[in-house]
Amino acid sequence: MTARHEQIADELRRAIDREEYTVGSRLPAETELAAHYGVSRGTIRQAVAALTAEGLIGSRQGARRVVLAGRRSQSFAELRSFAQWARAMGREATGRVIAQDYRPATAHDAVRLQLLERTPVLHVLRVRGLDGEPVLLERTVYADWISPAVETIEPDCPSVTQRLYDDTGLVFAYGEHVIDAVAAGAQDAELLGIRRTSLLLRVRRVTTTREGRPVEWSDDRYRSDAVSFSVHNSTGNNALARNTAG
Amino acid sequence: MTARHEQIADELRRAIDREEYTVGSRLPAETELAAHYGVSRGTIRQAVAALTAEGLIGSRQGARRVVLAGRRSQSFAELRSFAQWARAMGREATGRVIAQDYRPATAHDAVRLQLLERTPVLHVLRVRGLDGEPVLLERTVYADWISPAVETIEPDCPSVTQRLYDDTGLVFAYGEHVIDAVAAGAQDAELLGIRRTSLLLRVRRVTTTREGRPVEWSDDRYRSDAVSFSVHNSTGNNALARNTAG
Repeated sequence: MTARHEQIADELRRAIDREEYTVGSRLPAETELAAHYGVSRGTIRQAVAALTAEGLIGSRQGARRVVLAGRRSQSFAELRSFAQWARAMGREATGRVIAQDYRPATAHDAVRLQLLERTPVLHVLRVRGLDGEPVLLERTVYADWISPAVETIEPDCPSVTQRLYDDTGLVFAYGEHVIDAVAAGAQDAELLGIRRTSLLLRVRRVTTTREGRPVEWSDDRYRSDAVSFSVHNSTGNNALARNTAG
Repeated sequence: MTARHEQIADELRRAIDREEYTVGSRLPAETELAAHYGVSRGTIRQAVAALTAEGLIGSRQGARRVVLAGRRSQSFAELRSFAQWARAMGREATGRVIAQDYRPATAHDAVRLQLLERTPVLHVLRVRGLDGEPVLLERTVYADWISPAVETIEPDCPSVTQRLYDDTGLVFAYGEHVIDAVAAGAQDAELLGIRRTSLLLRVRRVTTTREGRPVEWSDDRYRSDAVSFSVHNSTGNNALARNTAG
């Protein structure tokens, strides 16, 4: 039998999934939750601790907890690999390489990866899943200096980021992302198991080392019915200057 | 006749629009640009200074300038109003209220805006444009305490954020955004002048004061053919802890 606090944690997770509590909103106070479920505050605290550990809600004690992320919502607060995000949300990441091959860098590749045109660079097409369900198609081009290390990684490696760190010490430090929406093409639809023209969130990104050296650029397409993105931001320190500047 | 540096600035802007230079990539060095256009480095510097002032490229002297934003790309680096973003990109923001009315807060409104259910709150439907072209539909619900100040703003005010600051001293300090993709519904299509089922980027957001008090929540829909979003992020200070944690 499932412990009561686990049942309550699960009900709260589902309420966040249904967006009864959206990102930025607050859960009711512990006393209210305790009254609602007819349990002690200690039981509520155990349930809330589980959600805190998963990164779903804030950790500030006492106050009403802020919902930080839906389970379908990938936070851009810091640069995280797909596998890191999945794990933080209590889900299992999977990966599968569909195709990989070397091609001469185009002018486009050369600008993004800061290398010479026609340098051979590794192209990898990967399907990524959450709990076995395909949600993301990655079309990644790796810089020449890291391509050999990527080439030897097994096709179903769940975290390429982790593997590259373990094998080479490489740390992905900075990411620049451009987000827009596109309709699924034939290959997208086939590999993600969705209909053509389904809605996809596209993220085009360049990831660099701490020194600003580009490691990869990628065209990532997420099933919009399965994933959303969350971004938290604030006004700059120049809030008072806004009167004239903005 | 347009000065040569203005022509070059315009060619660079168009290259960024065409994504020849994408966010995160670098422009060629000044010497290369000077050779390419057959002008002095001084002329290139004038062109580059214009793009820097518009926030399109980085301001670091000497080095190859990093492209910070496409002209269609709204940065989430800091919380900015639509009008502030448009102005930073050298474009003119317009706004037009289509409908506004008070309605009793739903349970949903009450959680997001931290007020009691059935409190009257102001709903505003607004079309926003860039250089006269409609690109964004905002469906905003304001907290009861700010609703009267919003109600009296003229329907074509280009910056509600600026107006509220001028009238009441209110500063929008923090934003929580959830981004996904949706197909245009009948009202979206009509007001944005696009076909039904066109792709839209949806941003659902809650904006708060510096003290964390919610001011508004909004369902914003951007034409995906006209606007993208850019996000820059980095790994946390815990990059070394990733080996075990992530």
